[in-house]
Amino acid sequence: MHVAIPLYPRFTALDAVGPYTVLAMAPGCTVTFVAAEPGPVTDDQGALTLTATASYADVPAPDVIVVPGGPGTMAALSDEALLGWIRQAHEHTRWTTSVCTGSLILGAAGLLTGVKATTHWGLMDLLKTFGAEPVSERVVTEGKIVTAAGVSAGIDMALTLLSQADGAETAQMVQLAIEYDPQPPFACGSPKTAPEGMPERVLALMSETI
Amino acid sequence: MHVAIPLYPRFTALDAVGPYTVLAMAPGCTVTFVAAEPGPVTDDQGALTLTATASYADVPAPDVIVVPGGPGTMAALSDEALLGWIRQAHEHTRWTTSVCTGSLILGAAGLLTGVKATTHWGLMDLLKTFGAEPVSERVVTEGKIVTAAGVSAGIDMALTLLSQADGAETAQMVQLAIEYDPQPPFACGSPKTAPEGMPERVLALMSETI
Repeated sequence: MHVAIPLYPRFTALDAVGPYTVLAMAPGCTVTFVAAEPGPVTDDQGALTLTATASYADVPAPDVIVVPGGPGTMAALSDEALLGWIRQAHEHTRWTTSVCTGSLILGAAGLLTGVKATTHWGLMDLLKTFGAEPVSERVVTEGKIVTAAGVSAGIDMALTLLSQADGAETAQMVQLAIEYDPQPPFACGSPKTAPEGMPERVLALMSETI
Repeated sequence: MHVAIPLYPRFTALDAVGPYTVLAMAPGCTVTFVAAEPGPVTDDQGALTLTATASYADVPAPDVIVVPGGPGTMAALSDEALLGWIRQAHEHTRWTTSVCTGSLILGAAGLLTGVKATTHWGLMDLLKTFGAEPVSERVVTEGKIVTAAGVSAGIDMALTLLSQADGAETAQMVQLAIEYDPQPPFACGSPKTAPEGMPERVLALMSETI
């Protein structure tokens, strides 16, 4: 299985690296980071640069694409090189997927009309702009389009994909290999469980970075 | 708070990027990826290259160091440039931390003698080589040395550190911002919960990569 992960300026690193680490560990699975041109792409914090090793043109027909999100999503919504590659690759994929606001990019590519999808909890309404039906779940599958919630949800999505691609046993082995037995220090990772008023404050901080 | 994350060949990407994404999001926290010399460093799968933007000499006294693990750890145990930097930086840190087999590197630097520490579940006994006392917990704190279990545990560790550095509210806000409300598809992320025989099979696969 060949997985392609597009990188664009100001993506969020964990959106890409969570699914990457899970999928690249599976036997027979290769992952390629792609961009308009091969080379360095810097993340949303400006402190981490990942290298795209191939151009979009180099990878026209991957089995899976995983589109990360991040503050750079808003600019990426009009990045025709990225959108064109997604549209074209989508014709060939087994799964077309996203993490966090990456689903808005799938939407801008025209793939979410009438499709159930998710994104970061704070930007759920924006999905409607693209004709999608927002769903507040960790991982949402409709046909071959699979969208994950915010940032860390890409790990859960990748394990889910792996289970479908190679069977539960492979996914379980990878989950055990990365010791994914999460023990978050707080029960506040969702607006449903966060302290009162905190979602609004997080949104205010996020809006400064977009 | 200034956090330094050393990169060495064949590190595991999520070990570094999990804590990075959490810590870099906190107000007033900056993270620098360091190596013997600035430049690209490729991970354990050979598919992802991160850029170190500073040399060890450039960052002699960070507040926190986070040493990732990975198959490259075994070679890193005799990397005197890395070990020397860790020893010297440790004299100044508020916290000296590791993810996964990164704790073995702390051990090789001589920091774990008589210290309770953890690592990936499959390599726990190796900690004794360095005089450490292995503890099977997700995050182990002894004084200013904080070690995390395998790969994904760095996210839990980083949130724990952030809570101590800046208060629970900051950590909660970051946890909510990255929507860290984990829903692993299987209950098998620890050898205690994995299907019978699976830990041995995962170890056999892991041993091929070291």
